[in-house]
Amino acid sequence: MEQRQINNSTICAISTPPGTGGIATARISGPKAIEIVSKIWRGIDLSKAKSHTAHFGTILDPQTGQHLDDAVITIFRAPRSYTGEETIEISVHGSKWIQRELINLLIRQGAEIADRGEFTRRAVVNGRLDIAEAEAVADIIAADSRIAAKIALSHIRGEYSAQLDALRNKLIELATLTELELDFSEEDVNFADRSQLLALAKEINQKVTALADSFAAGKAIKEGIKVAIAGATNAGKSTLLNRLLGEEKAIVSNIHGTTRDIIEDTAEINGLLFRFIDTAGIRSTSDPIEQIGIDRARKAISTADITLWLVDASNPTLPPSDDPKTLIIYNKTDLSPAPDGAISISALNDSDLKKLTDELTRRAAPMQINPAQTVTNARHYQALIQAAQSSARIIDALRTTLPTDLIAQDIRETITHLSSITTPITTPLLLTQIFQSFCIGK
Amino acid sequence: MEQRQINNSTICAISTPPGTGGIATARISGPKAIEIVSKIWRGIDLSKAKSHTAHFGTILDPQTGQHLDDAVITIFRAPRSYTGEETIEISVHGSKWIQRELINLLIRQGAEIADRGEFTRRAVVNGRLDIAEAEAVADIIAADSRIAAKIALSHIRGEYSAQLDALRNKLIELATLTELELDFSEEDVNFADRSQLLALAKEINQKVTALADSFAAGKAIKEGIKVAIAGATNAGKSTLLNRLLGEEKAIVSNIHGTTRDIIEDTAEINGLLFRFIDTAGIRSTSDPIEQIGIDRARKAISTADITLWLVDASNPTLPPSDDPKTLIIYNKTDLSPAPDGAISISALNDSDLKKLTDELTRRAAPMQINPAQTVTNARHYQALIQAAQSSARIIDALRTTLPTDLIAQDIRETITHLSSITTPITTPLLLTQIFQSFCIGK
Repeated sequence: MEQRQINNSTICAISTPPGTGGIATARISGPKAIEIVSKIWRGIDLSKAKSHTAHFGTILDPQTGQHLDDAVITIFRAPRSYTGEETIEISVHGSKWIQRELINLLIRQGAEIADRGEFTRRAVVNGRLDIAEAEAVADIIAADSRIAAKIALSHIRGEYSAQLDALRNKLIELATLTELELDFSEEDVNFADRSQLLALAKEINQKVTALADSFAAGKAIKEGIKVAIAGATNAGKSTLLNRLLGEEKAIVSNIHGTTRDIIEDTAEINGLLFRFIDTAGIRSTSDPIEQIGIDRARKAISTADITLWLVDASNPTLPPSDDPKTLIIYNKTDLSPAPDGAISISALNDSDLKKLTDELTRRAAPMQINPAQTVTNARHYQALIQAAQSSARIIDALRTTLPTDLIAQDIRETITHLSSITTPITTPLLLTQIFQSFCIGK
Repeated sequence: MEQRQINNSTICAISTPPGTGGIATARISGPKAIEIVSKIWRGIDLSKAKSHTAHFGTILDPQTGQHLDDAVITIFRAPRSYTGEETIEISVHGSKWIQRELINLLIRQGAEIADRGEFTRRAVVNGRLDIAEAEAVADIIAADSRIAAKIALSHIRGEYSAQLDALRNKLIELATLTELELDFSEEDVNFADRSQLLALAKEINQKVTALADSFAAGKAIKEGIKVAIAGATNAGKSTLLNRLLGEEKAIVSNIHGTTRDIIEDTAEINGLLFRFIDTAGIRSTSDPIEQIGIDRARKAISTADITLWLVDASNPTLPPSDDPKTLIIYNKTDLSPAPDGAISISALNDSDLKKLTDELTRRAAPMQINPAQTVTNARHYQALIQAAQSSARIIDALRTTLPTDLIAQDIRETITHLSSITTPITTPLLLTQIFQSFCIGK
């Protein structure tokens, strides 16, 4: 039913960012796209226009005959469009008012306002994208570093889905044989090669675990690798933050305890997104507000991926504990020298800054990943963890020679979890289809 | 020189509104548009693509080979483009990061970042638009009511320029004859028909004055018709403002003198933009902040196009003076009845509100204008005022039979002022050309 409604309705929305600009583009998709747009269009006959052609003309209100704006219309004929449906893009002058009126005009001619993500949802329903690819569309729009965009683009292209689907399909093949065995269980036939099944279960468990493990890096890449800037008061933390961000984000003064709030922002360095967090200097204080700031600083340090511990070389305060994620940096080395081999940022000139950001990039290197094998989506992570657990149960079951029907249950679960990443959770029909096709003749 | 530079360089910019959206579009215009974009494009051969065709492909960095995003490219071949130059539009996913990187990529291949309005400026240089039409492009992008958009669209289409050019051309024709007379002055020849010149000068003076007079309405339409909401304290002014705006803009309470600041915002009613201004209630007060508010209220009332004077029917305070622009409205008529024929908005239900907004629209009716004959641009207004003055001098001169050379000077000035509206002020060359062509053989 849901699918039928989608295919019968024609939706419209402004697809460009909200606000005022040179041009803005409305997208109309559905079986009546051409009919609806033709009513408000004065220009060439759209019903005869070829796919992927652009045309200059005028948008007008058919009721009043009043002109709204000049426009360029681009036609994408089904199925050669993003949604797979008849699609028209209308580019008008980017006035907020014109954008609003254009949508109103389209709605008065019978279009419906699109829901969030509905164009992409239609692309999924029409088989142009799977769910994981569709989720990556949202990710690429939100991307704010080269790596994040690269991962999302790889996922949109199906490189990530393809390997999940390959694993799932192998499992379905073996599961079919296992189910056959169940059907003929009274006859004591062994269709499935158990050693082959064990090898596959191991492969799946290993790959799925590796994907799940990539989530920590994927999340850091998407949200920014968390770098806490810590150290005693007046070590120069806020100055360093401002240099790393390239703007005067934090207030800088010579007064100890100037920074109390957690100040954070992101910067892209060497293609990676870093989230820098300036924290209150750690010292004993009787000021209750500063004490809250120090507690927050400790929390920020404990959850950071990397801690930059800044030391005033002339009055060194080292970190309270030895932590491999902590990078000690000496400041003010014009007054006292830093220990050999330590990173020093005395003048905080461009070369000092480069030394520091190169070291940060090096430390983030384990996060320099294969885009197609990096999970950035929490829903996928959950499904992968579950697939890892159920595939581990298959391995155990095969080793302990449990009855086939119990193994079959774990195989089904693993398939379900892998499938849920690329196929909509909301359509259990699809899952049913999968199982129908492999339970021969039942 | 300026023109040559423009024609040699290829410019690029994001043309859609700034921010994040489903899609964003970069525009590239200039002789190397196709060459530059081809370097970052994997898809069909752009140099062979026909004008007005759209193509799906991939944007990549030619130095690293890294993919940036999938994209749809639309090609507009010179001169069939907005600028009149080779133009390419690249639509990508609307991530801020992708938009920034796309522009960076284009610049690394030799494109230059476009100045504000440079695409439109190139359209002017290439004869696709005149200056008044180009100015209207900025107006249509800023338009926030039907009437404002309608005026701007009419101006973009040249309906406004056409009548100015028609007046100017008639004048040039007559001026040519006048100049001929000067050339042959020793021979006492009368080429120009003085009565015809007088009739034309009168026509020009009348039309130009009418256009200049339309500026008050044009400005109000563009910026909003200023409606001050005034009256005694606690008459219900802030409640009325909120209803007119359809949002809780002003703080409402039963305490007299709640509103002190001038609170204003615009709303489009029946296609017209109104700028509603809520003011402090007028009363004697010893509170210095409230007194400042009352002074500001008086100023707002004096500069408003329309004043809505709100009266508490149970305790009526009428406006201090009788002003035709003041509309008296009775509130709280459930407690005491309003005088016969007065507008009452006791309950402020939808029908009350409609009564009031219809009356506002009726009062703004003189501002319901012919788009092609409405001036919204202050620069044009100045030029029209000057053209009105110099054309008035032509009339005077003809009536008092001043020597032809003095009349010729006023004709030239009138032509210059009319020309300045549609031709760039910054190119005196164009004006020179005009005068060269009518001073035969000099």
